[in-house]
Amino acid sequence: MSSAPSADPEAGDAGLARTPAPPYYAVIFTSRRTADDAEGYAATADRMVELAAQQPGFLGVESVRDADGLGITVSYWESEDAIAAWRRHAEHTAARDDGRARWYAGFELRVARVERAYGRENRQDWGQSTFPPVATSASGDPEGNVL
Amino acid sequence: MSSAPSADPEAGDAGLARTPAPPYYAVIFTSRRTADDAEGYAATADRMVELAAQQPGFLGVESVRDADGLGITVSYWESEDAIAAWRRHAEHTAARDDGRARWYAGFELRVARVERAYGRENRQDWGQSTFPPVATSASGDPEGNVL
Repeated sequence: MSSAPSADPEAGDAGLARTPAPPYYAVIFTSRRTADDAEGYAATADRMVELAAQQPGFLGVESVRDADGLGITVSYWESEDAIAAWRRHAEHTAARDDGRARWYAGFELRVARVERAYGRENRQDWGQSTFPPVATSASGDPEGNVL
Repeated sequence: MSSAPSADPEAGDAGLARTPAPPYYAVIFTSRRTADDAEGYAATADRMVELAAQQPGFLGVESVRDADGLGITVSYWESEDAIAAWRRHAEHTAARDDGRARWYAGFELRVARVERAYGRENRQDWGQSTFPPVATSASGDPEGNVL
């Protein structure tokens, strides 16, 4: 679906997903890659993001992996039902079963309900002119964060 | 507090936070760094994680930034009150006000309630022998994720 936002795993729009006002859902996937099969992993990861972006209820994805192989991918969804449907998707299921054993030294997956969101971007620093000045905000107030 | 888990921003325990069974809260902070002041940023970020780990209700943190400056930090908290208290912490407030303008080309912060969690680690791949084989699980069932 071309209307799905932020389908690029390396994070189009400079990496921040353009999500609507809360509430919505987040799947937080933290993982440590093995050193094996970088090419196979990259191809499958790209394909899964492409496929996820086509699913009903997909809102966006943010994904970062560092040189040590530690990665965090957060995908955003309209509802728990949308997450459940994606979980049951046949190609996704096959990739997941195949991939988790081979590619990950470990992972942790958390499903969470986003209650509030707050953002800011300096337009001059972004490549995407349609990205709103303030992405989403339930309260308008900055929230606590590690930084 | 030495009892706080996973205080290392570069993610002791190979990067995955050892969180308790849900429910608990997650602060998902996605950001794009400017190219400025790498040293000042790193020092403050380290200090903020050290400080966060001393706060009541802190459960852990996972943090990744890639070579392009895109980063995701997820901190975990027992309650919304714990998040609110950390937000009001004086040194944190000063660092945040000072740092956000200077260090970030853009950011998005989301506060979410973690409903379910599922994990796996291959003990032989981890440096930390006390990390449990299955980190946390509400249902025992794998959930959908981008991969």
